[in-house]
Amino acid sequence: MQTYLECVPCFLRQALDASRMVTDDVEVHERVVRDTLGLVEKMPFDHSPPAMGQKIHQMLREASGNPDPYSEVKASSNSFALELYPSLKQRVNAAEDRFATAVLLAIAGNIIDFGCKTRIEDDEVHQAVESALAPGEVKSNNGQIDVLREAIERSESILYLADNAGEIVFDRLLLEEMPIDRTTMVVRGSPVINDATLEDAERAGLTSVIKVIDNGSDVPGTILETCSESFKEKFRQSDLIIAKGQGNYETLNSEAGNIFFLLKVKCPVIARDIGCEVGRALVCRNQLVDW
Amino acid sequence: MQTYLECVPCFLRQALDASRMVTDDVEVHERVVRDTLGLVEKMPFDHSPPAMGQKIHQMLREASGNPDPYSEVKASSNSFALELYPSLKQRVNAAEDRFATAVLLAIAGNIIDFGCKTRIEDDEVHQAVESALAPGEVKSNNGQIDVLREAIERSESILYLADNAGEIVFDRLLLEEMPIDRTTMVVRGSPVINDATLEDAERAGLTSVIKVIDNGSDVPGTILETCSESFKEKFRQSDLIIAKGQGNYETLNSEAGNIFFLLKVKCPVIARDIGCEVGRALVCRNQLVDW
Repeated sequence: MQTYLECVPCFLRQALDASRMVTDDVEVHERVVRDTLGLVEKMPFDHSPPAMGQKIHQMLREASGNPDPYSEVKASSNSFALELYPSLKQRVNAAEDRFATAVLLAIAGNIIDFGCKTRIEDDEVHQAVESALAPGEVKSNNGQIDVLREAIERSESILYLADNAGEIVFDRLLLEEMPIDRTTMVVRGSPVINDATLEDAERAGLTSVIKVIDNGSDVPGTILETCSESFKEKFRQSDLIIAKGQGNYETLNSEAGNIFFLLKVKCPVIARDIGCEVGRALVCRNQLVDW
Repeated sequence: MQTYLECVPCFLRQALDASRMVTDDVEVHERVVRDTLGLVEKMPFDHSPPAMGQKIHQMLREASGNPDPYSEVKASSNSFALELYPSLKQRVNAAEDRFATAVLLAIAGNIIDFGCKTRIEDDEVHQAVESALAPGEVKSNNGQIDVLREAIERSESILYLADNAGEIVFDRLLLEEMPIDRTTMVVRGSPVINDATLEDAERAGLTSVIKVIDNGSDVPGTILETCSESFKEKFRQSDLIIAKGQGNYETLNSEAGNIFFLLKVKCPVIARDIGCEVGRALVCRNQLVDW
């Protein structure tokens, strides 16, 4: 997805919010905001918004001297999600359609996104779970969930591109309904915002459930040119890509491949790009389905 | 008032909103947004926000080739306010305290501000009138309204710094409760956003009621260094300044003088600077009351 002019004020708001979250040093806040202004001024708007997210958070790590400013936030999200896991698993066990329920719960977990907000209340997560499981939501995504179900059944090799810490515990519910031996989970190569890394996947217990690799990149999304050769090869060779979250939608929607996006739509620009309303728990495919 | 870091994303939003309002040319939108990024990057943040507003709207007029892009908006606001005038005058005539009622109606008119929004619905103006006249509002400003009333009685020469087209018709209600022969109304020197100019004051019939001069500046506020010598002299010689709107508060709050601000607080940064809630219809004084 291209960067729209509406993304510009949002980049600045994100840079300010994130710098305030990461440090109390007002000089760092001003430096990050000013540097972001300079970067966005020269940014090619055919690049996707996470390309700017990468740069803003690189600056923030450098200016604050903290290589993983969201470390505590991520640990806390993982703990919270792990507490929820048993009750969520019961919801899957009790469901008429286990797979559809697990898909919608995995999407609900995508509410834990510190790229959009600097604070996520526990109640918001609970609400996301309940609204994702409401009968209307199940029905509205039903067609695409069935297409995804069939794609999984037909695929020999599946990549599951994770998004955020905490959310990965919700992903586990879905991975447990999938052919886990044919599936690899992918996390970011190094810390950016609250996106899950290998360390977060280990802490959340995912590495004992499924094979987890990293993509070698610090983009809050998946820009292939920034990823490791081994990841890119795996990406091209996979029969099916399941990509979580807005960042992966923004960066992969125009890529070739058999890609399904599972996301909670939190931003009006992305909602308009997709053609849906903000707040939707959505299953959708990339523009270039034929490859 | 200084520029706060929260103003930065808002400058970009305003630049984009205003450019879309002024022209359909997407190249102009992008150019104005990019140029604003460059200007804000280098802006000294001890300058007030309207200093940036001036530059953004200068760029916009240049890029669009339109010296008065809000001309129609201003004419329409004036017409709408002139239609309301007779019923508002009745409210003043029926009021127990004519002056206080006129003050609060003048503040209600400050809702007609296209610096904060690109669209003002008629209903918002009606609501601003009703909420300004609610008993709570009258009471909450009562002390300051009485101080203003006494200041007017004591003053030989009064400057009334207007803000927006349309709003100036609401100002007329207050000016008619004041010693009009000792009062001069001041408008902007040339078009910026929907701020009132001499032409707007003429169209709204103000020039037949009171002496109206312009300040020689295109700042959406009153930055004295940008104003004409004759205005500055008048400003320094006046016993009392009544300044309407956020832009005048932002630019004059740290100036010396006997200044009263009458404004509808529409921005959270200004609300925090003043120490009140967004939405308030407020009478307040400058920081440097002794001069």
